[in-house]
Amino acid sequence: TAEYGMLPTSTNSRNRREAKQGKQSGRTVEIQRLIGRSLRTILDLKAFPSGQFIIDCDVISADGGTRTASITGAYVALALAVKKLLKKGILTKNPMKDSVSAISCGIVNGKVLVDLDYNEDSHADIDANFVFAKNTGISEVQISGERSTFSLKTIDKMIKLGLKSTEKIFRLQEKIIGKI
Amino acid sequence: TAEYGMLPTSTNSRNRREAKQGKQSGRTVEIQRLIGRSLRTILDLKAFPSGQFIIDCDVISADGGTRTASITGAYVALALAVKKLLKKGILTKNPMKDSVSAISCGIVNGKVLVDLDYNEDSHADIDANFVFAKNTGISEVQISGERSTFSLKTIDKMIKLGLKSTEKIFRLQEKIIGKI
Amino acid sequence: TAEYGMLPTSTNSRNRREAKQGKQSGRTVEIQRLIGRSLRTILDLKAFPSGQFIIDCDVISADGGTRTASITGAYVALALAVKKLLKKGILTKNPMKDSVSAISCGIVNGKVLVDLDYNEDSHADIDANFVFAKNTGISEVQISGERSTFSLKTIDKMIKLGLKSTEKIFRLQEKIIGKI
Amino acid sequence: TAEYGMLPTSTNSRNRREAKQGKQSGRTVEIQRLIGRSLRTILDLKAFPSGQFIIDCDVISADGGTRTASITGAYVALALAVKKLLKKGILTKNPMKDSVSAISCGIVNGKVLVDLDYNEDSHADIDANFVFAKNTGISEVQISGERSTFSLKTIDKMIKLGLKSTEKIFRLQEKIIGKI
Amino acid sequence: TAEYGMLPTSTNSRNRREAKQGKQSGRTVEIQRLIGRSLRTILDLKAFPSGQFIIDCDVISADGGTRTASITGAYVALALAVKKLLKKGILTKNPMKDSVSAISCGIVNGKVLVDLDYNEDSHADIDANFVFAKNTGISEVQISGERSTFSLKTIDKMIKLGLKSTEKIFRLQEKIIGKI
Amino acid sequence: TAEYGMLPTSTNSRNRREAKQGKQSGRTVEIQRLIGRSLRTILDLKAFPSGQFIIDCDVISADGGTRTASITGAYVALALAVKKLLKKGILTKNPMKDSVSAISCGIVNGKVLVDLDYNEDSHADIDANFVFAKNTGISEVQISGERSTFSLKTIDKMIKLGLKSTEKIFRLQEKIIGKI
Repeated sequence: TAEYGMLPTSTNSRNRREAKQGKQSGRTVEIQRLIGRSLRTILDLKAFPSGQFIIDCDVISADGGTRTASITGAYVALALAVKKLLKKGILTKNPMKDSVSAISCGIVNGKVLVDLDYNEDSHADIDANFVFAKNTGISEVQISGERSTFSLKTIDKMIKLGLKSTEKIFRLQEKIIGKI
Repeated sequence: TAEYGMLPTSTNSRNRREAKQGKQSGRTVEIQRLIGRSLRTILDLKAFPSGQFIIDCDVISADGGTRTASITGAYVALALAVKKLLKKGILTKNPMKDSVSAISCGIVNGKVLVDLDYNEDSHADIDANFVFAKNTGISEVQISGERSTFSLKTIDKMIKLGLKSTEKIFRLQEKIIGKI
Repeated sequence: TAEYGMLPTSTNSRNRREAKQGKQSGRTVEIQRLIGRSLRTILDLKAFPSGQFIIDCDVISADGGTRTASITGAYVALALAVKKLLKKGILTKNPMKDSVSAISCGIVNGKVLVDLDYNEDSHADIDANFVFAKNTGISEVQISGERSTFSLKTIDKMIKLGLKSTEKIFRLQEKIIGKI
Repeated sequence: TAEYGMLPTSTNSRNRREAKQGKQSGRTVEIQRLIGRSLRTILDLKAFPSGQFIIDCDVISADGGTRTASITGAYVALALAVKKLLKKGILTKNPMKDSVSAISCGIVNGKVLVDLDYNEDSHADIDANFVFAKNTGISEVQISGERSTFSLKTIDKMIKLGLKSTEKIFRLQEKIIGKI
Repeated sequence: TAEYGMLPTSTNSRNRREAKQGKQSGRTVEIQRLIGRSLRTILDLKAFPSGQFIIDCDVISADGGTRTASITGAYVALALAVKKLLKKGILTKNPMKDSVSAISCGIVNGKVLVDLDYNEDSHADIDANFVFAKNTGISEVQISGERSTFSLKTIDKMIKLGLKSTEKIFRLQEKIIGKI
Repeated sequence: TAEYGMLPTSTNSRNRREAKQGKQSGRTVEIQRLIGRSLRTILDLKAFPSGQFIIDCDVISADGGTRTASITGAYVALALAVKKLLKKGILTKNPMKDSVSAISCGIVNGKVLVDLDYNEDSHADIDANFVFAKNTGISEVQISGERSTFSLKTIDKMIKLGLKSTEKIFRLQEKIIGKI
């Protein structure tokens, strides 16, 4: 499972501290479920004898796309944890079947953009998040018409741009995991 | 906004009463946000002088696809409420720009199915929910690889079948709204 | 034990969803305790090897007397559950020593009424709920002077009318339990 | 309204602190509602310009019948508060139409007892609480068959003994209110 | 561990019931931690086979210094409980290494006072609480500049007066423990 | 007021997310109260027309002394905020009467240490936190005997070392505030 949080000062105008509110917001719970689901897809859950990974995604400074950045980072954290457990012999078989990365996508003024910053995100007509598994295909597609509806052709265009853009992210993930 | 709930006895094995747990589950909050977003897309929010619609979606008997059924039914409830308010002169202009309906979709044993029952749903490799606006296009796409990943071609196939299947739902919605 | 809930839309003006409020109201808790107590009176608790019955009383459409209707229905649900467990051999001895039904009673404009609808209930000076065990006698008496106090004679009159009226309810309960 | 609480050390075996549990138990909420209802019956609510009385009933040492003792004491507290407000000219008309006192009653080993102590209470077959208004009649009757059911004749006997026993309580209440 | 509470009516103007608020205030939690810490310092925790002492400090009537009075009283309660357990043979070795008492201290109009009443406390410029172990020394020092800051010399003066004043409290504690 | 939080991953072994627990721990609440009190002492509260400062102290990586580091940092944040508001003309008079910094102190193996790291802190016999106002004197003293009690002489020694050590901190604070 994954836990997600934003520091009150991570956003332009301060967001309210969830620990003080006494509960996590609907948005937080939704993101936590998405992160957990994205990682479970590429894991061979039978390879774990028991136990549980808790991956903490805490946003220290936010500028759009925190949920996709969380998935991308959570994969790296999980891969490093698994690497350590394999080295220590606690895990005897690598449970990771594939690597995963995510990217936000949107239509702003008729143009398809990826990895939107806060300013672009707040002007997007269509808001999307894609999770890709490197070798096997698409893992999650979420597209919401915030201000307008969209066509099948737009979906096609957005996903293709997303796929291309994550190639670079996959390379960066591998570089970090390889180093540590 | 929309509120969603399932009676404890609506499912095969009793689900726990959220009022007793002291909070709504992550799943419930996520569904409520989806229902609200789906209806806001087709509404001209400036046409409302003030006030708020609360749409209650309570599942009395569940058999798969409760979230899409909730959206489909919520649209009918909203349309009937607006009709009443227009007749009473409380609203002077129809705020509904389009009609909306939703359908669940999934890949079970390699076959694309729509409106899955509980049995099909629990064996689906890919789980999807689509929200369509009748005249303007797609409003929301959510596809999750529960047991496997998927390709762009599969997305295309699923959405096309979903679009075709909702034609019948749109006709049923109109019939009910026309009658009352 | 028993759990009680009202759908937000079960009443004339929408009541607030307890799952959203984060807790069950005092009224709900009081009714749950009454339902549980009424059924325990007629049960031989030693006949159960272990385990627990949870009886859900969810009000889908309310029109006065929901707590007494809940007890009456809860008895039927419990009797059917016990019947099933006896048939399956999970219970070897019938733990039900008697049958139970309940009725609301009130004084409206000086007249004693039973099974008050919402309109009568909201004009009642005295508000009462009786639980009767068929063969052994009275199980619970609750009489509240909402707008005025009352005499011993009034109590006598109310309970006698209640006793007479539940005869019909007991016959209906038996009919349903016999059928299934 | 009234609030009720028991100190953790008021009972023989320590009861759990509700402030620590994060909520009031069903029993506490039920008692608070009963105290409030009992006092409202004898009040002319129109005589109050605005504002609210909160009556705290905190049990420092418990030995059976805490809810009836709370009502009896709450009446005295309210009468004293009203007396003070009349003297100060904040209230110009006495809103108290009658006085109220309550007594617990039970059947232990076939004998009708009033004001049961903890030991008697825990062996009672029938458990009852009565609230009486001095001049106008009975205000509340609650009789529960804890271990057995009961007859109309038993109700009659219990209430008559209760009525007789509260005469002494009414005299004590008047004496205290007169003094202060 | 220790639990602390104030009755709503213990203070001049009613304080809100924490059980109703659904949580203990920051002040309550802070005091509970202080009481627990003060007693743990003088206990040989290895002398306990298992189990836990819960010490309830409920303020029935408050007039300044409730937290130090709680510690002083909590020590007596603990000493009596230990005495009982030693007599019963449940404890075989006395786990109490020392005795403990506490006193409030403050600077009001330039004068050092101990055991401040409510009136003095609300006018104090410096507010302090000291916990002393009889034979071994100081256990806890808390000094807050409510309205002004203070010097090392003032600390010295306050603690010395506190130490002298608790001599009398230690004698009173011993007297009570000896008697029972 | 101030709010305090620790990221789950800020400590050596993960600490539990308070937003998920549904409430802030006693420790968190105590620290928040301390930070708020420390800053209020040096503020002229009458200089504020209205409004409220919320200072967020979030610990991203912890190694002992997070509460004193929070006070020290909170003062800088407040000073920068006040500077900005004075420049914008929203505040017309500087409400800050003095500067404030805090330092942790402890006795480890008989030696007095300041600014203890996690390892030193967990072996300390005496644990202390001091808050100093630069020009006017001491603002808060908290000394707890974790494993042993202490003498007046030890207090003297600890505070003197604390005072000397914060001189460097005051210089650092001024440098940062001057720069921005």
